[in-house]
Amino acid sequence: MADLNESIEESQENNNLPKVFLHGPPEFSFILQPNPSHNFHILNPSSLPPLHQFLSLNPHHASSIAAIVCTGGYTVNADVLQLLPALRLVCTPSAGTDHIDLSECRRRGIQVAGAGNLFSEDVADMAVALLIDVSRKISAADRFLRRQVQNVSWNFPLGSKLTGKKIGIVGMGRIGSEVAKRLEAFSCMISYNSRNKKPLVSYPYYSTVLELATDTNVLILCCDLNDQTRHIVNKEVMLALGKGGIIVNVGRGALIDEKELLKCLIEDEIGGAGLDVFENEPHVPKDFFSLDNVVLSPHAAVVTSESLMGIRQIVEQNLTAFFSNKAPITPVI
Amino acid sequence: MADLNESIEESQENNNLPKVFLHGPPEFSFILQPNPSHNFHILNPSSLPPLHQFLSLNPHHASSIAAIVCTGGYTVNADVLQLLPALRLVCTPSAGTDHIDLSECRRRGIQVAGAGNLFSEDVADMAVALLIDVSRKISAADRFLRRQVQNVSWNFPLGSKLTGKKIGIVGMGRIGSEVAKRLEAFSCMISYNSRNKKPLVSYPYYSTVLELATDTNVLILCCDLNDQTRHIVNKEVMLALGKGGIIVNVGRGALIDEKELLKCLIEDEIGGAGLDVFENEPHVPKDFFSLDNVVLSPHAAVVTSESLMGIRQIVEQNLTAFFSNKAPITPVI
Repeated sequence: MADLNESIEESQENNNLPKVFLHGPPEFSFILQPNPSHNFHILNPSSLPPLHQFLSLNPHHASSIAAIVCTGGYTVNADVLQLLPALRLVCTPSAGTDHIDLSECRRRGIQVAGAGNLFSEDVADMAVALLIDVSRKISAADRFLRRQVQNVSWNFPLGSKLTGKKIGIVGMGRIGSEVAKRLEAFSCMISYNSRNKKPLVSYPYYSTVLELATDTNVLILCCDLNDQTRHIVNKEVMLALGKGGIIVNVGRGALIDEKELLKCLIEDEIGGAGLDVFENEPHVPKDFFSLDNVVLSPHAAVVTSESLMGIRQIVEQNLTAFFSNKAPITPVI
Repeated sequence: MADLNESIEESQENNNLPKVFLHGPPEFSFILQPNPSHNFHILNPSSLPPLHQFLSLNPHHASSIAAIVCTGGYTVNADVLQLLPALRLVCTPSAGTDHIDLSECRRRGIQVAGAGNLFSEDVADMAVALLIDVSRKISAADRFLRRQVQNVSWNFPLGSKLTGKKIGIVGMGRIGSEVAKRLEAFSCMISYNSRNKKPLVSYPYYSTVLELATDTNVLILCCDLNDQTRHIVNKEVMLALGKGGIIVNVGRGALIDEKELLKCLIEDEIGGAGLDVFENEPHVPKDFFSLDNVVLSPHAAVVTSESLMGIRQIVEQNLTAFFSNKAPITPVI
């Protein structure tokens, strides 16, 4: 079937337009579909074979692919870049860019376009919802009610008030700012940690996550994953956050030491966690499943029907602009 | 056991302090416990027999009970008031007062004290959380993940964006105002319905819930339950809200025609509902349990560990003030 598709796609590409490769699982084809008005040509709009397989079947394309559209989890590292000497643009529809070797792209003069601000609101909405859910035990109470064959009891453990709590935001970028804006309306007191103090941000700044955790009730992780932030929330940070503390992760799973998090949740060393992301997605450690102090979300913070419509437009606009010799509309580098 | 308790309590009441009766289930005794500094005497601090039973065992107290502390669901109607000719204060620790016949109290010159603003923040937090939960399918996705023995799929149906949605608040009192304040931070557009247009509220006013539903994506019910508001959300209103519409109820169950709501949810005539309250609590219709477009909460919007501490103080302060010939601190009428 893949061979048939390749040959069909091959026949469609008799044009001199710049070539674009879609780098993702089969369902990723929704992101960009052929349109006669395009100033580029999609090499694999229907079948999405792995890049290596595609290039071994179509070796001449190694030197023709000018842009790649890659989803989160589909790596664009130095090895991949090595295969594509003509590559000039990497376009990702994801909020994070940890799957792309940005420094290697920079070194080779390859531009990178991202999702811009598109997902910030949805991710911030999810972060706030996960926080209240954990704090007020909403998903747990919903399960509790549904489990009862007869309505024998409404006595579910008490939740904690959100309003007025001290919130530590890790990563005060677009998403972190949107989270802060929302939680200010809940009369929460905001502090933050980021690589550097932001001159335009008036919230108290902490240079380490450990100090932030010591002084707050809640940590919300909205930062990028990189070598500096991997396991930025370790056991020491969790113990500093303390028994009533809540961790919300809408960034990347590996920001937290997941094994230690599980232990802390099981032993009530922290109050709870709202997790949209996990260390080895799509794997979710089964030990989470029996815990009522955790809310589990399938990496859905960015995904709404509205955002999917939006990201398709952004990918198309980035490619169109780039191949019109303009700058991408939502550049990362 | 009840008789023994009565006799003990009887022996303790050899004082001339005004008498207070706790009107609620046994676990309601947490609300007020004896303290030597009190300027009133609690008749039934440990056993909480039904009022009728208590009066039949202690008929002389019919003319001595000066205040009653009643929880939601424990009616204080004309029949109850008839039994207590010396009653001067009804004190409820609940946010709603639909269990109290306010006009009969007014007619008889009985003062009523409530929870003041204590619960507004917690209820508003819950309303916002239920809304995002339904819209973004958080509890449903959490159940979906936990059901999977193996991590075969993360493909859960898409949620809808909250930011920017048109919100109709029914009841723009303390709770409604807190909900509006929070949802403004999500760039939502707020409109409201209440008995009368509020001169100090700048949001667009709708004189009927039907018109409000027609023009909005979401209805949030924060109003009192009374003869005018019973089933204020009926089938016509739900159909006007429409297929993507969401209803959040943190008021009282009977504000919605629950049977019609169930039908509309099952037939996807509305998008979803977040329900903290039900028509015949603690009964929750079992047909809700199989639906993924509803989030069920066991009347927990007001209940946090912080609010329970707070309400005990308020009840005590109201009684203390009242029996010092001062006005209750949180009067309802």
